[in-house]
Parts: sequence; structure tokens; C-alpha cells
Amino acid sequence: MAGSPRRAAGRRLQLPLLCLLLQGATAILFAVFVRYDPDADAALWHWGNRSSSDNEFYFRYPSFQDVHVMVFVGFGFLMAFLQRYGFSSVAFTFLLAAFALQWATLVQGFFHSMHGGRIHVGVQSMINADFCAAAVLISFGAVLGKTGPVQLLLMALLEVLLFGLNEFVLLSVLGVKDAGGSMTIHTFGAYFGLALSRVLYRPQLEKSRHRQGSVYHSDLFAMIGTIFLWTFWPSFNSAPTMPGDGQHRTSLNTYYSLTASTLSTFALSALVGEHGRLDMVHIQNAALAGGVVVGTSGEMMLTPFGALAAGFLAGTVSTLGFKFFTPVLEAKFKVQDTCGVHNLHGMPGVLGALLGVLVAGLATHEAYGDGLGSVFPLVAGGRRSATAQAVFQLCGLLVTLTFASVGGGLGGLLLRLPFLGPPPDSQCFEDRIYWEVPGEREEEAQGSLGAEETDTRA
Amino acid sequence: MAGSPRRAAGRRLQLPLLCLLLQGATAILFAVFVRYDPDADAALWHWGNRSSSDNEFYFRYPSFQDVHVMVFVGFGFLMAFLQRYGFSSVAFTFLLAAFALQWATLVQGFFHSMHGGRIHVGVQSMINADFCAAAVLISFGAVLGKTGPVQLLLMALLEVLLFGLNEFVLLSVLGVKDAGGSMTIHTFGAYFGLALSRVLYRPQLEKSRHRQGSVYHSDLFAMIGTIFLWTFWPSFNSAPTMPGDGQHRTSLNTYYSLTASTLSTFALSALVGEHGRLDMVHIQNAALAGGVVVGTSGEMMLTPFGALAAGFLAGTVSTLGFKFFTPVLEAKFKVQDTCGVHNLHGMPGVLGALLGVLVAGLATHEAYGDGLGSVFPLVAGGRRSATAQAVFQLCGLLVTLTFASVGGGLGGLLLRLPFLGPPPDSQCFEDRIYWEVPGEREEEAQGSLGAEETDTRA
Amino acid sequence: MAGSPRRAAGRRLQLPLLCLLLQGATAILFAVFVRYDPDADAALWHWGNRSSSDNEFYFRYPSFQDVHVMVFVGFGFLMAFLQRYGFSSVAFTFLLAAFALQWATLVQGFFHSMHGGRIHVGVQSMINADFCAAAVLISFGAVLGKTGPVQLLLMALLEVLLFGLNEFVLLSVLGVKDAGGSMTIHTFGAYFGLALSRVLYRPQLEKSRHRQGSVYHSDLFAMIGTIFLWTFWPSFNSAPTMPGDGQHRTSLNTYYSLTASTLSTFALSALVGEHGRLDMVHIQNAALAGGVVVGTSGEMMLTPFGALAAGFLAGTVSTLGFKFFTPVLEAKFKVQDTCGVHNLHGMPGVLGALLGVLVAGLATHEAYGDGLGSVFPLVAGGRRSATAQAVFQLCGLLVTLTFASVGGGLGGLLLRLPFLGPPPDSQCFEDRIYWEVPGEREEEAQGSLGAEETDTRA
Repeated sequence: MAGSPRRAAGRRLQLPLLCLLLQGATAILFAVFVRYDPDADAALWHWGNRSSSDNEFYFRYPSFQDVHVMVFVGFGFLMAFLQRYGFSSVAFTFLLAAFALQWATLVQGFFHSMHGGRIHVGVQSMINADFCAAAVLISFGAVLGKTGPVQLLLMALLEVLLFGLNEFVLLSVLGVKDAGGSMTIHTFGAYFGLALSRVLYRPQLEKSRHRQGSVYHSDLFAMIGTIFLWTFWPSFNSAPTMPGDGQHRTSLNTYYSLTASTLSTFALSALVGEHGRLDMVHIQNAALAGGVVVGTSGEMMLTPFGALAAGFLAGTVSTLGFKFFTPVLEAKFKVQDTCGVHNLHGMPGVLGALLGVLVAGLATHEAYGDGLGSVFPLVAGGRRSATAQAVFQLCGLLVTLTFASVGGGLGGLLLRLPFLGPPPDSQCFEDRIYWEVPGEREEEAQGSLGAEETDTRA
Repeated sequence: MAGSPRRAAGRRLQLPLLCLLLQGATAILFAVFVRYDPDADAALWHWGNRSSSDNEFYFRYPSFQDVHVMVFVGFGFLMAFLQRYGFSSVAFTFLLAAFALQWATLVQGFFHSMHGGRIHVGVQSMINADFCAAAVLISFGAVLGKTGPVQLLLMALLEVLLFGLNEFVLLSVLGVKDAGGSMTIHTFGAYFGLALSRVLYRPQLEKSRHRQGSVYHSDLFAMIGTIFLWTFWPSFNSAPTMPGDGQHRTSLNTYYSLTASTLSTFALSALVGEHGRLDMVHIQNAALAGGVVVGTSGEMMLTPFGALAAGFLAGTVSTLGFKFFTPVLEAKFKVQDTCGVHNLHGMPGVLGALLGVLVAGLATHEAYGDGLGSVFPLVAGGRRSATAQAVFQLCGLLVTLTFASVGGGLGGLLLRLPFLGPPPDSQCFEDRIYWEVPGEREEEAQGSLGAEETDTRA
Repeated sequence: MAGSPRRAAGRRLQLPLLCLLLQGATAILFAVFVRYDPDADAALWHWGNRSSSDNEFYFRYPSFQDVHVMVFVGFGFLMAFLQRYGFSSVAFTFLLAAFALQWATLVQGFFHSMHGGRIHVGVQSMINADFCAAAVLISFGAVLGKTGPVQLLLMALLEVLLFGLNEFVLLSVLGVKDAGGSMTIHTFGAYFGLALSRVLYRPQLEKSRHRQGSVYHSDLFAMIGTIFLWTFWPSFNSAPTMPGDGQHRTSLNTYYSLTASTLSTFALSALVGEHGRLDMVHIQNAALAGGVVVGTSGEMMLTPFGALAAGFLAGTVSTLGFKFFTPVLEAKFKVQDTCGVHNLHGMPGVLGALLGVLVAGLATHEAYGDGLGSVFPLVAGGRRSATAQAVFQLCGLLVTLTFASVGGGLGGLLLRLPFLGPPPDSQCFEDRIYWEVPGEREEEAQGSLGAEETDTRA
């Protein structure tokens, strides 16, 4: 039997070795496969002799930067609501997403943008990789505080692969539209994370429950995440849509939908709160559901009213989910969902997919004119009726749910490998396991570290 | 007499019902009136057969996003300086602005962009709605901590209406130029809020004075708001100006003006501070006055030197206002101005309007060349002399002051309706009335809640 | 001998007077020399009769805004990690950068953009001025907590001048390429600050050592700075590069390099940490080294793999520097480097310069095609071989190191002028010397102020 010192030494090396291994592997694959796309290549761009303003960069880079902030600032700080897990929330987001960007560039490149055996990268691939990172971070939200960085990197390794495959099946095989990722990002990320959390179910999590809440300032840090996600979400949904009216309309729809989900979240939170008081958890999360719910239909002719109605519904469902369904999810289904990703990404994602089915099914040549070719190329080309498109959209949802839950289950089995050293039940939601934490809490820390050492030595 | 339980139940339902009512009403109006503008409509845009890069979206969307961040992050966190009111500052900003965006889309649409009985929405209307929300948040700053969310939503309902009317009179009737809103946003928002605060004057506010200050970390949260407002203000003033040299020049002028107001704020703050110490309140607020003061003249040929001089003056006036005038405002004029909006938006707004009078009056064909038509179309068209334009600009200021003070007074009367349940004098600047506040302060909370219940039962 | 009251009065007036003097001087110089450039001037732009979308503004303004956020939010909050120096970190960043923007506009204007005796300003000059401010803030990082605002403004006054001169020698005389400023910004700023810190060496700094660390929340504030720097760094490096493929490629390279430096930072931090724990200082700083290291070569055909490799190396060197070299720097070289700028900007900057030497030396017509003229105009024009360009790049590094260390030394002598009132050794890293600090720490403050008064009276 390995004694405590050897195990400790082994665990000490796991994170460095895994980081170096993953970085080495992606670097080699980059050397072999990855090249600048023609809009970013000195020789190829100038050969084309085009005007600078036609470079794809100017159509997408500002939106890309907004998405980039959402992924790193938005998700990172949103998860910093936990009182003693702020370092891990922000910094593991940073680590996971940084790795996911590299790995997703490769995986999505293999599936979507091989040209003569080479992957072409440019602003579009940066956006796509950030989207994939977002899905990983959604899954992270479900297991936040209960998994170490080595486990999380392995989760990302698997999830990015399946994300790319699912995205390929939806967009390239089924011809489904899902620009803002109600299905590919939110539904996939949420159910992957929930399935994974189910496999990692901890019956004794009660031991760490006193740390599973916020303090006053941690809730304000989380609001930094919320508000940046909220303000930049119009860029998220519109970043990959067609230039011109496509990006314009998508950002409008998202903007309106979010205002409605904010109003319904405040309404429902006060309605179900004790003494009519509002709950920060709802405001931080459910108010964002309006962005999720128009992820599929935002680029379509949803109409501004449609956006309001969708956002209102999503905010309502999400708030009620936090209040009534999250406890059931844990008690009955044994799914411990730290951040409530089922409420913010799961249900609104599914609703968004269904809304996409509806709006696609209602598409007419009259409503879209010559723009039909941009939004529904297969319908415009006569290869599919609007109804058929709707059916394919629905298939896309089912495929996504399947990939996510099977994949998340496999991920859970992977993460249960015993040598990965998850935090003990009594040390969940605690930064001190992974971080040199400064003085402030020195004394209490002594106590908790003693407890930790006892636990992990066992 | 209604007993305490029934009143409590009534108050519990007020916020949800008002949110639902307002959302329902705007949704219906959206369904009837609001349509995508041609740059965002699939059929209309493609019918035009224009190049994607000509879409209005690419000229304004990056600036819009900066403005959006200013409204939600900037104003929200700037007001989070209060030690026990951070949740309310950030989240009521969120609620108010989300509602204001919808309502302003309708009100401004009726006044400015009706086409065949329909309101056309696009990136320009998003910017305009955000501007209107900014005015509402300025007024919020004057009454921060002393009004509940139901009162605030009613304030927004009225203020957006009057904002739209005032804006219509200035821009469409009087032909006044005010791109960055020295008058329409800052002067209007400030004096509306101050008049409203006058009507809601609380002689017993002393009872909550111990909460009306900051703590170390809350001042840092407020600096997040300040710095984002400061960095993005060039986008605020330039977002609605003419593409090309107009946006370019406006952003330059604002950039320089802000650097000067920062220097003068530091200088004056140290000069008037005890022992030469700086005061965070000044830095957080007065340093921004340079953005306010070029709100009207920023798009004109103000010259870089003019921008520096204007910013310097605004920072000086604003800092001195915080130090010397805010106490007078309360003691003599019975106006309690929580955030000092008179110093940041009121006086610099009026100064900015007067600067606009001056710079408009000095406009010559020589200085503007063919660009005169963009900045002063009526002058370029020969329908008005530069001097006449200056007189109209001055009228715009007077109209704005009138609308704001009469409107704010009416708003105050509305908010005094007894069933709206404002916080008692002893419970101002306190999150616990509206929020489930996490543990940290559990014990002291018991005490203060007891006090609250006594107060509200009376 | 001047008694304590008179000295106190004198010191009280130093900051206001210096701010007013500097502002007055730059304002006069602006009035005489600074004019809008043709893309921002109403008459000149319209005379050109060009399409709005050709205005330089649309190619650079979104990137400029990202850079602006990096300078004010990024640097400001990154330095707020100190437990009792958050006000000063954020607000002196604000003051220094605001002054530096004005002064750099003039200095860089004199060196680079005089047209008929006038300095033309536009979006490009705003970017350049922000870059210069970034260098000043890097130097600030070296002396953070040990210098007062008057000293810092004098430092900025000198540093901006030398920055402009060094930049002129590199870009205009030597024909060196350095778009993202590995040399001109990072190497220069770091070694200027380190030389200055050497001259200001405090053998008794131990007396303030208890304040030279973070607390839990201050580390989270610092992460706001880190993450915004990280997400916007692609805009930093690409902001001044050629429109089209140049900006596109630079942002891609920076994006990849940063992901790699993040992975290597986590790996190394865990490897060298006690019990394999991660250190927030490394994550906050070294993870950014990937942005610094491609500052010179980012616009070149570095290849995505090259970006990964460079970022990986930079993160490694930077993390090891924090762990092993910073203590040596203080013990052996008597350089006290508060923020570790040697690790984040110094060594990665030098590495970035050397990488530029390498990549420039490898440039071929084949790899760059007609784009060679954009990246290496002298090579494309046949006036220089690629090898010669590499040699000039290396000279650029040596010139920069010379300017920085001599200039920093002179700066240190300037800042040692006795009447500038630096904080006493026992009061370093302490906001209360400069700020009215709110209640939270009232009582302990009494103690520390007593100490301060004793110290400064001596």
C-alpha cells in the first residue's frame, strides 16, 4: 500500500505533468496541422488583392472580443459566488478555457475546416473555440467545488471531443441552424455536466454544506460575471451569424430577450421569496436565461415581440427551477448541481431548441425574401421544406441530449479513477486544497487543513 | 385599518405584479408596433443588395456595446459604494435599465422613428434606448437608498416618457445638437432626480446616516464602475454621431476632456482635503465630469485644446460641488442627493450645454468645410445662422431644465403614494429590506430587522 | 529649519500644484501644436470625399477601446492585490495614465507626426499614447507602495520623454518592427522601473513587510485586472499593425501564445509550490507573459505553433522568475520589485525581442508574398536583407535596455529630491497616507497614523 508521503508526492506532480502533456500534444498537432487562414496570411491575403475592409476580421473581431470576455470574465466571476472558492472558480475557469481553446481549435478544425489536410485558423475559429470553451465551463458549473483541476482537465479533454462531434452532426450532417448554441453549447454543456455530476454523486456532501453559500462580497463579485455576460450576450449569439442583417437582427433579438428575462426573474424571485424578498442567486443566473433561449432562433425572423416573449418565459422557468426543481434534482435524481446549470442552461437551452423548431417551421419566402438563403440555405435551395427543417431542428435537440448524457456519464466514470484525488466530502468548496491562501483566514485555516490532512491520508 | 399581515402580503405582491404588468404592456405594444429596421430585416436588407460592410451595424455596434457596459456595469457598480446597499445598487440598476430599454424603444420610436405606423428598431434604437436608461439611472443616483423597486419602476415609467418628449422637442422641434446628451441625458436626468428627491425630502434621514458611507471594499467595487465609465465614455458621446469624421472627432474630444477632468479632480481633491488627503468620492465621480461636459460640443470642431479646457473646468466644478455644495443642497434646499448627481451630471451637464452654445455660435463654413452639413444641417442649408443655432441651443437647455424639474416634481408626488411602501427613515441604504442577504452579517441583521418591522407596522 | 506644520502645508500643496502646472503646460502646448488629423477633421475629411467606412476609425477604434480598458482597468486592478493599497493602486494608475496620455500625445507627436509644424491626432495617436501610458504603469509596478503621487508624476514626466525618444530611435531611425512593444513598452517600462527602484532602494523596507501581501478579496480584485489584460491582449498587439491580414494574424498569434503561457504557468506554479499548491501571484502575472513575448513577432509569420511555443516558454520563465529570481533581485541586486515586473515584463520582453530577431531573420519572400511590404518594408524594398533586419532588431533591444536603465537611474535621482516626501519605511504599501479611508479600519488607523506623524516629523 502506498503511504501518505508517496501519494502526496504523486498528486503534487499530477497537475504539472498533465498540463505539460496536454500542451505538448496540442503543440505538436498545431505544428503539423494548423495554418493561418487566407484572411490572416501575409502571402495569401495580399495575393487576393482585396480591400482591407473586406477582411473577415472587421466583421467579427469586436464580437469575438465580447465573447472572449464572457468566457473568461463572465463565467469565471459568475462562479465566484462561493464564499471560499473564489480563487478556484476564477482561476480554474482560466485554466480550463485556455486549454479548451487550443484543443477545440484542433477538434473543430478536423471536423469543420480542413483544407488540403490543414486546419485554417482565423477570427471565425477563435469564436468557435471560445464557444466550445463556454460549454466546458457550463459543465464545470455543475461540478464546481467537488472536482480538482486534474479531473477538470480530463473532463475538458473528453468534452471538447464530443462537443466537436455533436456540433459536426448537427451543423454539417443534419443541416441544423444553431448560431448562438441553444443546443450545441447550452443544452450540451448542461446535460453533459449534470450526467457527470450524477455519476460523481456524493451522499455525504452535507459535510461541506456550510461552505456552499455566498457571502456579501462574493455575491458582488458574481454580479460582475452576470452583468458582463448580460451586456455582451448579443455579441455571443450574433458573432457567428451572417454579416449584414444576420448579425444585426441576432443582436437585436438577444437584447430584447434579455430585458424580458430580467423583468420576469425579478417578478418571480420576489413572488416566491420569503417575505417577498429577492434572491441574488436568481438575479445572477435566471436573468441570463433570455440569452440562452434565443440561441437558436435569434438569427431567424423571430420578431422583437417574439424575443420578448421567449425571454420572459425563459426567465420564469429558470427562476422557478432554482426555487423548486434544484432541490428535487438532488433529492430524487441524485444530481448535485452547484451553480444550477440546469436552470440557466439546461431548461432554457431545451426551450431555445424548441423555439428554433417553431420559428424554422414558420419560415416563409415572404418573410425572409432573398435573405432566406442566408438563414436557411437548404430551404432556399429547395432541398428541404420549412417543416422538414423544423423536424431536423428537433432531431438536433435529441441528438444533443443523447451525446451530452452518454458523454457526461462516460466522463463521470473517467473522473472516478481513484488516483485523481478528488477533494474529500468535508473539503468541498474550499480553496485551500489547491491554493496558497493569504492571511485573512489563517487561524480557521489551520483547523480545516488539519481536517483535510486527516481525510486525504485515509 | 389594514393590519400588518395584509399589508405585508400586499407589499409582497407589488413588485411581481408591477413587473408583470409592465412587461405585458410593453410586449403587446411591441407586437403591434415594433419591426426590424431594413438593415436588420432579412427580406428588406437583401432586397437592397448592398455590401455587408455598409450595414449600419458595423458603424455603431462596437460603440453600442461600450455604452451598454457603461449603463449596466458602470452605473451599477459606481452606485455600489454604499456599505450595505451593493445588492440593491447593482441589481436595481439592472431591473430599472432593463425595463427602461423596452419602454424607451417604444416612446422614442413613437416620437422619432415611426415608418408607416411602425417603429423600426436597429442598432441606432438600441443606442438611443440605452441613453434613455442612463438618464433614469442618473435620477436613481439622487434617490439611491431611499426608494424601493416599485417606486423606482414607476419613476422610470414617467421619466422615460418625459425624456422622450424632451428629446423630441430639442432634436426635432428646435433642431438642437446634443449627441452625447449634456442636456437630454445628464441635465435632464440630474434635475429630474433632484426635483424628485426634493419632494421626497426626509427630515429624519439622520437615522440612517451611519449606513450612508462606504467601506474599503465597496469603494473598490465603485471604482470598477468609475473606470469602465471613464474608458468607454468616448464611445458614449460618439455612438450616435455621423459616421466618419464625426465619430472619430467626438471620441477624441471626449478622450482628452476626461484626462483633464481627472487631473483637475486629483488637484482639487487634495487641495480641499483634510491634511491634503484625497477623497475617493471625488475620484469616483468628478473625474468623469469631463465626459459629461463635452456631451453637446464633442462632435463639433471643439479642438483638442478646447476639450482639455472644458474637462479641466468640469472636474474642478464637480469636485468643489461635492465638497462645498452638496451639504448646502441638503441644508438649504432640502435636496438629499445620495450619489451627488448634481455634481457629476447636473452642473457639468449645464456647463456642457453652455459650451455647446458657444461652440455652435462660433461655427464657420471655413472651419467645417463640407462637414458643416453633418454637424449643423440647418446652418449649412442656410436656414439658420450660427448665432441662431446658438440661441436654439440655449433654448434647449431651458426647455430641458423645465421638463426635468416639473417632471421630477410630478414624479415625487407619484412616488409619495402611501401604499408604495418606501423604506422607513431608519432603514435607508439597507439591502436587507429587499434581499435575502447571506450569513456574514446574520446577527446584527436580527437587530435591524426587528427595528424595521416595528417601523413598517406603524 | 522648517517645522512640521509648515512642511505639512507644503506637502499638502505639492500634488495640487504639480497637477495644475502639468495640466496648464500641456494645455498650452495643445493649443499651439495639436490639431485633428484629416480623418477626424470636418473640413478635411469631407474634402477627401471618401466613404465613411474608409475612415481609420473603423479599423482601429474597437482595438483602441480594448487597449484603453487594459491600461486603466487591467493595470489598475492587477496592482490592487496589496491588502491596504487598493485605493492607491487603482487611483494612481488613473492619475498617472491620464497625465501620460496628454504628455505622450505631445512627445510622440513631436517625434512621429508633425505635419507643417502641427501634431495631428486621431485614433492612431490615441493608441500610441495609451501604449506609452502602459510603459509608465509597468514602471509604477516596480515602485508600487514606495512612492507618492508627486514622485510618480515626475517619473511619468521623465519616462514619457525617454519613451518617445527610444521609440523614435527604434522605429524611425533603426527601422525596427515592434508593433506590440516587447521592446518599446515592456522591456523599456520594466528596466526603467527596476533601475529607478534600485536607486530608491530601502534597506529598512522590512518595517512595512506585513502590508506587502494580499488578502483574499484583494486577490480577487487583482484577478479582474489579470483577466481583462488577458482577454484584450490580442487587441493590444494588433491595434497598431497594418489593417487586413496584419491585425488578423497578430491577434491570432497573441491569442494562442496566451493560452500556452496560462498552461505553463499553472504547471510550473503547482510544481514549485509547497505541497503542490498553486500561487495566485503566478496566475495573476505569469499567465500574461504570453502576450508580452509575441509583442514584436506577433505581426510576423510566426505560425500558430510558434505562438504556442513562445507563450509556453514565457509562462515558464516568468513563473520561475517569481519563485526564484525575485528574492535574489532584492538580496543581491538591491532591487525591490513590488509587482514582479521583471518577471512579467522584463524577461518576457527581452525574450520577445530576441524572438523578433529570429523571426525577422527567417523572413522570406515566399512566406510573406506581397505582404512582405507591410511587415518589413525595408526588406521588401530591397534596402535591407532579412539578416540585416534581424541585426537591427537586436540593436533595438540594446538601445532600449540602455535608454531604460540610464533613464531609470536618472529618474531615481530625481525622485530622491528630499522635499518630495516619500512614504517612510514603516508606512509603505499603506493607503491612509494619501487617502481618506472609510471606517472599517478606523481604530487601527489611529495607531498607524500616529506612527506616520512621528516618522514624517523627524
